[in-house]
Amino acid sequence: MSTAQAIEEKDAVSYTSAVHAKAIELGKHALRMTDASGSGHPSTALSIAHIVVELMYEKMRYDPSDPWNVASDRLVLSLGHAVPIVYAAYADLAGAVGKSPADKRLLKVDDLKTLRELSSVLDGHPNPAEGFPFFDAATGSLGQGLSVAAGLALAARLDGLERRIFCVIGDGESREGQIWEAADFVVDHNLSHVTAIFSCNGHGQADAVSPQQSADSIEKKMTAFNWSTIRVNGHDPDALHDAFDRAIQSDQPTAVVAETVKGWGVDSIIGKNFHGKPLSGDALKTALTDLDATGAKLGAVAGKLPLPVGPKAPKCDDDRVVALAPFEAVLRRAGLDKELGQKKLATRVAYGAALIAAGDVDPRIVALDGDVSNSTFANLFQREHGDRFFECKIAEQNMITVAAGLSAGGKIPFASSFAKFLARGFDQIDMAAVSRANVKIVGSHSGVSLAADGPSQMSLSDVAYFRSMSRADNGYGQPVCRTFHPSDAVSAYRCVELMVNTNGLCFMRTHRPAAPFLYPFEERFSLNGCKQLRTGKDLTLASSGFMIHTVLNVADTLAESGITCNVFDAYTFPMDASPILEAARASGGAILTVEDNFVGGLHGELAEAAARAGDVRVVGMTVNKLPKSAKSPDEVFAYVGVGPDDILAQAREIAQK
Amino acid sequence: MSTAQAIEEKDAVSYTSAVHAKAIELGKHALRMTDASGSGHPSTALSIAHIVVELMYEKMRYDPSDPWNVASDRLVLSLGHAVPIVYAAYADLAGAVGKSPADKRLLKVDDLKTLRELSSVLDGHPNPAEGFPFFDAATGSLGQGLSVAAGLALAARLDGLERRIFCVIGDGESREGQIWEAADFVVDHNLSHVTAIFSCNGHGQADAVSPQQSADSIEKKMTAFNWSTIRVNGHDPDALHDAFDRAIQSDQPTAVVAETVKGWGVDSIIGKNFHGKPLSGDALKTALTDLDATGAKLGAVAGKLPLPVGPKAPKCDDDRVVALAPFEAVLRRAGLDKELGQKKLATRVAYGAALIAAGDVDPRIVALDGDVSNSTFANLFQREHGDRFFECKIAEQNMITVAAGLSAGGKIPFASSFAKFLARGFDQIDMAAVSRANVKIVGSHSGVSLAADGPSQMSLSDVAYFRSMSRADNGYGQPVCRTFHPSDAVSAYRCVELMVNTNGLCFMRTHRPAAPFLYPFEERFSLNGCKQLRTGKDLTLASSGFMIHTVLNVADTLAESGITCNVFDAYTFPMDASPILEAARASGGAILTVEDNFVGGLHGELAEAAARAGDVRVVGMTVNKLPKSAKSPDEVFAYVGVGPDDILAQAREIAQK
Repeated sequence: MSTAQAIEEKDAVSYTSAVHAKAIELGKHALRMTDASGSGHPSTALSIAHIVVELMYEKMRYDPSDPWNVASDRLVLSLGHAVPIVYAAYADLAGAVGKSPADKRLLKVDDLKTLRELSSVLDGHPNPAEGFPFFDAATGSLGQGLSVAAGLALAARLDGLERRIFCVIGDGESREGQIWEAADFVVDHNLSHVTAIFSCNGHGQADAVSPQQSADSIEKKMTAFNWSTIRVNGHDPDALHDAFDRAIQSDQPTAVVAETVKGWGVDSIIGKNFHGKPLSGDALKTALTDLDATGAKLGAVAGKLPLPVGPKAPKCDDDRVVALAPFEAVLRRAGLDKELGQKKLATRVAYGAALIAAGDVDPRIVALDGDVSNSTFANLFQREHGDRFFECKIAEQNMITVAAGLSAGGKIPFASSFAKFLARGFDQIDMAAVSRANVKIVGSHSGVSLAADGPSQMSLSDVAYFRSMSRADNGYGQPVCRTFHPSDAVSAYRCVELMVNTNGLCFMRTHRPAAPFLYPFEERFSLNGCKQLRTGKDLTLASSGFMIHTVLNVADTLAESGITCNVFDAYTFPMDASPILEAARASGGAILTVEDNFVGGLHGELAEAAARAGDVRVVGMTVNKLPKSAKSPDEVFAYVGVGPDDILAQAREIAQK
Repeated sequence: MSTAQAIEEKDAVSYTSAVHAKAIELGKHALRMTDASGSGHPSTALSIAHIVVELMYEKMRYDPSDPWNVASDRLVLSLGHAVPIVYAAYADLAGAVGKSPADKRLLKVDDLKTLRELSSVLDGHPNPAEGFPFFDAATGSLGQGLSVAAGLALAARLDGLERRIFCVIGDGESREGQIWEAADFVVDHNLSHVTAIFSCNGHGQADAVSPQQSADSIEKKMTAFNWSTIRVNGHDPDALHDAFDRAIQSDQPTAVVAETVKGWGVDSIIGKNFHGKPLSGDALKTALTDLDATGAKLGAVAGKLPLPVGPKAPKCDDDRVVALAPFEAVLRRAGLDKELGQKKLATRVAYGAALIAAGDVDPRIVALDGDVSNSTFANLFQREHGDRFFECKIAEQNMITVAAGLSAGGKIPFASSFAKFLARGFDQIDMAAVSRANVKIVGSHSGVSLAADGPSQMSLSDVAYFRSMSRADNGYGQPVCRTFHPSDAVSAYRCVELMVNTNGLCFMRTHRPAAPFLYPFEERFSLNGCKQLRTGKDLTLASSGFMIHTVLNVADTLAESGITCNVFDAYTFPMDASPILEAARASGGAILTVEDNFVGGLHGELAEAAARAGDVRVVGMTVNKLPKSAKSPDEVFAYVGVGPDDILAQAREIAQK
């Protein structure tokens, strides 16, 4: 006997009438709260009212007072702007809010009017990090939810949890390619616990959706993408009830394609492409009356709906600090004996070795890659920890957001590709930052040192992008993002260790060419740190990554002509610049920075620090023109103005001042 | 009678045999040239050998000696790493290379061995800007070609040209969501002159492609996306011949789904997932022998293939400089009389008005938007120049690359969305930069001043990303990208004019809130410029965009207590910082910058300039924590550390030093 049947038997009010009544009640809240906030999207909220009632009051197995329960079913609201209706349901269910269980309080219906206020947990779009833990990830930049759902489902499978993940997607946002990347990924990994629910109300922001995003088209597409599909009237409680049951019972990923109405129940706005505006004054009164009239027409009668039932959570422990096994032992295990002998290894290879070691000591470590694992060397992890490696194929947006979902499921995901191709996922990385996801991004073949493949494979703006997030706080005691840019295998190895032990978004930049070891195997590195590699009295040089080897050669050449230099390895952002500034003050008062990327990186970091005091000069050398293919790194370095001769000339000029 | 039949009749060598022979000949070139370069992808090149022969020797209507002919059919190689086979065909056809017609020379087969050399026009991946004008856009970051093709087809339609656009796509790269965004777009606009050719060789880089990217799946998907589809053996000359004829004759966008073999003809590598490596020494010899054996088996005999026939190009004139009509007249035309009266208008609205004026005086101006044209105000252009407005729906990656395609077709595309959502297209913007595309990107609702919608809609890293490209040369006398960040409607209007008259990538950042006019209607602005809005003797303040209004208020408050400030509007990058540094030197030697974004923007620009000389101090205020929703811009400014009180305190502290 289904729950709905049970209700019908024990209650005079039919299930259907009760769902309609609840949808109308929540719809009124959505209208009132967006009026109070002066902005928001009540019409979109109304289009998913019945879907939300079905899921949050019946189908989902969860305890609203314990949203941190890692065994609960989850709702991912991909169309984030519909959030007022979820807030309304959650308040009605007295769901718990707060940034952590210690901070917990139960949401009240009266709180709804604080929507979008600075002090409110009810942000304009889903934002778990501001105190709404019912959600797992920030949404609102569209098309990302299905990837979050996939990540949550993967994490649950790894943990042996029978969590179901329901993801509500708008028809308009299904135009985003990421939805189709995620659709492929879910099928590849047969994540049958994921249910995608498309709300097809036919309206976007500026206009009607394209016929390419009609319910018919979406159904055809999902079928072609090898999903099981169910077509349903999105405002018919019984039809939705049955559709969700079928989706839950299916052993295949299932899409529920629901035809919905934008502004459902409010005749005064239906069909008017009313988007992103609250109703107030008389218009609000009319809308509330409209909803009542709709309820009367449908025979809506408030009744008892089944309360969600929560599962039991397994124990969870994620404050551990892990130490990687010794560098040499792990490199031997990875089959890198020859490279150990030659004392030379690319940082991208060291990344793979470090990931093996991290996986050894921490079961939360998982890795993702976009069909380039034999270039990024994530394949070393795959070889040793295959059950925790997820091939995402050539679809970087989905990869980043799946990682965010895995993080929300308690994992520590490392996602790798060429640094250049990660730029496809910058909006997704932004959203992972807003979610405070514990995601580690690793970009290989960065800068120009890959040479022959040319500029379509070279990352030049990556340093500026990631560094931009390094000077803002994420509200949880960490920078929004930390960047690591190791110069050799030892530092790459230890940077991975730092990333594992830092709760928050991190980026590591690795390079294609092999590079000599610069550090003893037991060297340790620290957050905000830098390393002094040479000591001198005439000039201070700073660089990072592969470029530092060129800079060291330049320093040696300068030493032959009597100019001695400090050389710093600035391997992380944010960085405490004071050791470099101090050294510069004691050696002529000038710093020369050298980078294999566009401006906005190390030069900015040091110039900003130096200009605050104003007593140290900083000259920066960065890639000064668009690169092209060439046979060797040195040829490209020279072509873009950061070749050894360029550095030498610039250093001499500064040192002679 | 088809061309193939004609050949068969007049030549003893059958068309089929001749195509096989040519495919083998080009395949050998691809093997030898990648051996010479020491890197490259011969196996992928071989998989499209027959497709390339069919297109470049018969189906395409073009003159290899005049690749600049704007009426020619075009080939877009989305799977850019297969490029050696195209280079080989083009050399065989004595195609013209060079950065411009003035620089033209005919490619020789002997040039092929220069593949990937610094001085060669044969870059590692398609790169028209380095002198290979047969291509329209840089590819190599996968999944972008179909969008380029769509842009080219749109431009041709606007110009009344019957150009056919053939786009070759890999099976692996069809995992990229952008392919599906482009597939929707092509159908929405019924670009029936676009033929998508999928080369399904079953292999990616790290492994086989997913079953989701099998030929069957791709055919099913393209059908579901409402394309006409044709399935074909990609190494059968007659089948390909017929398929392309059907595609050309179709009045619907058509996908040719070709089953191909990675490393076709080279038995020694087939089925071994041989990717991205050249063959050399004995392996090369074996491969060449393998190809001969394949030829013998297929009865390949060198024969005369039809030479491509070129169309006649219409006249083209694109050195014009345009001037927009007077500000006030255009604002009135846009229906903004009330705002003129109030002397207050959001920069995003001024953008829309300026676009009307630009469209009036220059027919090359086109506009694209991603379902937010009523927020970005691109809808003003749509209203006045509807035939040149292209709705891209919620799919930003495709929008950016369609713009690059339109640019290659001679248009000046302005592509707009929320600045936040443009981050989805940063890899595509990178590629537009490599293509030296004349694309203008406009991001609205930038920074934190949109307030209530929260961080999922706020662009915080955009300034750092776009500025990173401002200090490198694009090789054509322009920075890789110019950024414009106007503070009021007048400057926004004139920045659009500057963008129209600058050949190259530009970004303009607009804001949501209305802002008072700061400039007289006739004020003029310049590339690399800045404007001094206040003069003082105690401190120099610099800002841009909406934030400058807060800074001006702070300056006024400071003036009340006897502290007078210079205030600069730094509306563009790259910027000549000397006027600001000069003013600072004459007013206490310090600059305070204020920004509504993360680090890497104006603070970096001025700190880098100041630290070079070392005689001016610079203190920067940027968004210091992840924002959240709040009701007003001022509330969010204060929350993230750049509220009026914060600025006032910081300014007082510096001025008192």
